[in-house]
Amino acid sequence: MSKSLNIAIAGLGTVGAEVARQLTLNKEHFTRKAGQPINLVAVSARDANKERGFSMDGIEFCQNPLDLVARQDVDMVIELIGGSEGVAYDLVSSALNQGCHVVTANKALLAHHGLALAASAEDSGLALAGEASVAGGIPVIKMLKESLAGNHLTRITGILNGTCNYILSVMQHENREFEDVLAEAQALGYAEADPSFDIDGVDAAHKLAILSSIGFGYAPAIDEVSITGIRQITLTDMKNALHLGCTIRLLGEVERNSDGQVAAMVRPVLLPLDNSLAKIDGPLNAVAFTGEPIGAVTAIGPGAGAGATASAVLADVIDIAQGRISPFFGEPASMLKPAQGQAQNNRAERHFIRLQVYDRPGVLADVTAILRQHDISVESINQPSRSEDGIHGDVPIIMTTHETVASELFAAMAEIADLSTVLAEPVVLSIGHD
Amino acid sequence: MSKSLNIAIAGLGTVGAEVARQLTLNKEHFTRKAGQPINLVAVSARDANKERGFSMDGIEFCQNPLDLVARQDVDMVIELIGGSEGVAYDLVSSALNQGCHVVTANKALLAHHGLALAASAEDSGLALAGEASVAGGIPVIKMLKESLAGNHLTRITGILNGTCNYILSVMQHENREFEDVLAEAQALGYAEADPSFDIDGVDAAHKLAILSSIGFGYAPAIDEVSITGIRQITLTDMKNALHLGCTIRLLGEVERNSDGQVAAMVRPVLLPLDNSLAKIDGPLNAVAFTGEPIGAVTAIGPGAGAGATASAVLADVIDIAQGRISPFFGEPASMLKPAQGQAQNNRAERHFIRLQVYDRPGVLADVTAILRQHDISVESINQPSRSEDGIHGDVPIIMTTHETVASELFAAMAEIADLSTVLAEPVVLSIGHD
Repeated sequence: MSKSLNIAIAGLGTVGAEVARQLTLNKEHFTRKAGQPINLVAVSARDANKERGFSMDGIEFCQNPLDLVARQDVDMVIELIGGSEGVAYDLVSSALNQGCHVVTANKALLAHHGLALAASAEDSGLALAGEASVAGGIPVIKMLKESLAGNHLTRITGILNGTCNYILSVMQHENREFEDVLAEAQALGYAEADPSFDIDGVDAAHKLAILSSIGFGYAPAIDEVSITGIRQITLTDMKNALHLGCTIRLLGEVERNSDGQVAAMVRPVLLPLDNSLAKIDGPLNAVAFTGEPIGAVTAIGPGAGAGATASAVLADVIDIAQGRISPFFGEPASMLKPAQGQAQNNRAERHFIRLQVYDRPGVLADVTAILRQHDISVESINQPSRSEDGIHGDVPIIMTTHETVASELFAAMAEIADLSTVLAEPVVLSIGHD
Repeated sequence: MSKSLNIAIAGLGTVGAEVARQLTLNKEHFTRKAGQPINLVAVSARDANKERGFSMDGIEFCQNPLDLVARQDVDMVIELIGGSEGVAYDLVSSALNQGCHVVTANKALLAHHGLALAASAEDSGLALAGEASVAGGIPVIKMLKESLAGNHLTRITGILNGTCNYILSVMQHENREFEDVLAEAQALGYAEADPSFDIDGVDAAHKLAILSSIGFGYAPAIDEVSITGIRQITLTDMKNALHLGCTIRLLGEVERNSDGQVAAMVRPVLLPLDNSLAKIDGPLNAVAFTGEPIGAVTAIGPGAGAGATASAVLADVIDIAQGRISPFFGEPASMLKPAQGQAQNNRAERHFIRLQVYDRPGVLADVTAILRQHDISVESINQPSRSEDGIHGDVPIIMTTHETVASELFAAMAEIADLSTVLAEPVVLSIGHD
């Protein structure tokens, strides 16, 4: 082991600045925990002159992140630029090629290029670490990779996107419409100006692809994840969910289906209010692991934010300094099974359905006839008061089904969507179980 | 690294048998996760002939656990005998002296002798690992030692004893008396025939002493922990707690007090029902870590049981096989600060008080006069109906105080307990906050 570890940070947003602040202000703490001094020797960011809460004394500023790796004395690069391609990819690749350990919080990069990058790191005996890439401060990657390594995982379920969870829990508790809460979340900085990455489920899917690979031993593939976001969830849906003793949360779920394939889904789900994930409010994240012999274990914490993400980055730094290096996916990249393609969730589940229909006699008869043809058993039908929305002629029908395989239900829904009396794409949500 | 790792297990109760079962039935899984074959070569137990769900083919049975270490080919001993002294201590000491790694689930041993054993392991470059010793399947030791290593911890709070949590949550939800639920817990196997180790808080104190050392960098000392168990908690207390919007849970808590000392306490606490730990029901464990920069992170899971405990033991085995060895307390034993002695909790808290008094005029005047002398501000006083218990002359008085330092309150309580009209030791519980 060298007598000290020289680090460079690429990207000084809130997370990068917090990491730099911790490393420079608590130097003695990190020397003790890491077993050697950790020296921040260089940083890269857009603006050299911005005040970021730490002293730049003795730290080189590089305009170009790739210059960090060109320095011969850098042992580890912390990549906090983001994005699956471009500078972040170039930096991480060249760092590994130049013999630098890499710590990253970049879920898009790891979901898209994690296999090749992990292989490159392993070939060179270097660390590629990314605890901060999933669920922020909650150490889900280490739990999965190390603490649960003796288990056969059967299921991972999580609230992986704090923005969506904030929006849905405010809709639930404050009785407000999606658009209204989204606008507030944007004002508070919980949602981006273009929120599609979060609310369309892409961010959660990146994280789920990483967890799925580590948990089930397949090469990561974002296109294996079936993705549904939360744009279509209305206050009417939330109210009806609550009426059924449930709330709605965006979940990432991966489990082995009855064909032995691993089915990974990001989707809004009705969760019974006494389910542990239903109680997670605001921008928190939570992940529940189920397996044998452990049973189940759940971790809850801040999924984003400077402090939480910095905590995860710093844990990776200390692990590497202490020589606790392991393959990114728990097993060597060369041993991962190839990506299998998207698997169907063929578990029978209860479902919640909302149809927007013309308020005309006979609509319900047409709908239920199609459901009967597909052998789908209806549990309840609810037509809220016609005048509720104040618009005559456009009313919701809320239905719940008994246990049905999703593929059957979607076939029926395609036919129902074609009815001239059905005004919009049906909203179909599974009703979660423990 | 050797080409395979030879393991011996001492103690084949439910946990030991499950570990042996996993290692022998899922050999290929463990070879992959550990990077080398894990061979179970010897076991020790009281009864050689009991059927335990795994094949003894190729496994030596030793009557005397110390014979496991006498074998020259054993690389690691898993100690599942229990107890802080005697055979468990002798086995672990001699294993470390003979160059064997040690994995143990023995919280009493680690709380009492962890410092010396860790020093011995570190001097020899061996692992002493004990994830299973605290909170069963929840990887709290790894979280604290590795995942939160970049943080300054300020507080650890946990439900660390499943037996107590089971009893209290059944009292809460089923409206039953302590003795009744304890008897049921004993029948179900959740509580021992002699339950004192659990219900008097000693088991939780062992676990808290370990967490406290890792989190705050002091040598472990069980006598630093102030311990109050749950024997004195009645259904009346639980009902009154619920009336105040709280439940009662046995918590282990450690935090830095305002004198800079680390105060560790095991005690029943009133927790607001919306507190995350108040929602933990049944025999589960949960631990919440608070620090900077992370904020807070909580893990919930099975705190006992064969599968959960085996999961933690197996994670330690894989870590050691992979060379991920670190000092048991996170920092070398030689660097821990000496045990400081028991520190007072000098945080001002609201308190719940139950007095059993003779139902006589003037009692309340005597009590409140003493409280006034100690400058303790009463928030509420409640005298439930005189006939409630059917025993004329013996009634409870329930009080809550505004924020008061415990030492002040206990001084007042000592005087109140001396009043001739006060029939039993006052029950004083702090009212928890987030």
